[in-house]
Amino acid sequence: MRQRIAIDMDEVMADTLTKRLALYLAEFGEEIPAESLHGKKIYDAVAEERRDAVSSQLRVAGFFRDIPLMVGARGVLAELMERYEVFITTAAMEYPNSFTEKYEWIKEHLPFFPDSHIVFCGDKSIIHADFLIDDTPHHFSRFAGQGILFTAPHNVNESRYQRVDSWSDVRKRFLGEPLT
Amino acid sequence: MRQRIAIDMDEVMADTLTKRLALYLAEFGEEIPAESLHGKKIYDAVAEERRDAVSSQLRVAGFFRDIPLMVGARGVLAELMERYEVFITTAAMEYPNSFTEKYEWIKEHLPFFPDSHIVFCGDKSIIHADFLIDDTPHHFSRFAGQGILFTAPHNVNESRYQRVDSWSDVRKRFLGEPLT
Repeated sequence: MRQRIAIDMDEVMADTLTKRLALYLAEFGEEIPAESLHGKKIYDAVAEERRDAVSSQLRVAGFFRDIPLMVGARGVLAELMERYEVFITTAAMEYPNSFTEKYEWIKEHLPFFPDSHIVFCGDKSIIHADFLIDDTPHHFSRFAGQGILFTAPHNVNESRYQRVDSWSDVRKRFLGEPLT
Repeated sequence: MRQRIAIDMDEVMADTLTKRLALYLAEFGEEIPAESLHGKKIYDAVAEERRDAVSSQLRVAGFFRDIPLMVGARGVLAELMERYEVFITTAAMEYPNSFTEKYEWIKEHLPFFPDSHIVFCGDKSIIHADFLIDDTPHHFSRFAGQGILFTAPHNVNESRYQRVDSWSDVRKRFLGEPLT
């Protein structure tokens, strides 16, 4: 039986942070400096009076539909699927408005990916897989397989888990050296 | 750590068959005889020229929103949650129109159930649980825990799995004798 990899969406397959920073700029007319996001979620990096606005971004209809694909995600995902059984596992229950948008996003950007291997969940300890590639360390605490931390600004200080910095890194970790 | 039970929705928590039979009666002006459903899905129990209509039932907007709760499901679920970690795991990816309807159905009928423990999936081998209560035997074939078949007319000839006939049976199997 092939090993099984579960892969998160936001900040792993989808470049959610880039979209959130653009929305912040549009709303407040200023950028969030990159250094202030190190080790912090965007919510904790902004002034207190802007936190409600930042939280609300995720509940706006359409938010999850047009997030950019993360660089390299599509090609490496397709390659992984040749050697592993791959599931996309996203904590969509936190944002019930996101169900259809996330599904349509996958259909648009990853049309080769089978519906049968998409999972919308909350607590990811329910996922039965050998590996979980995710940017959120708390999903690893009860996960039965191995957590692989996908680097995002908010998790740079986390040192408990094996880490990949990019999809090129995912490729190296799971498929060895790039094809020549 | 508490044992974990994953529970299906359609024909287990939700009485989907009753709704489908009512829709069939409304559309064709006749009932499907109970005996013709033994060992068969509704699709296979009707005349060939009516199969498209029967399949289409599930794709009509609103179909999954007003299905009756299965008798006994709510009370036993609440009791199970006191002794086990319980997830609701439904193959919603087969009907992407169902996401919001299924979520709202759970919120209405099982308001005490946590979002974090709802899973919309396709292939249920991704579920990491000790038990899976489901009416569809094929979900057990690659499931790592123990499959518990919830009796439905279509599965009466299946003999490979432990079976429960009702929510009262689920209670006996997982909680022992009823409280007096």
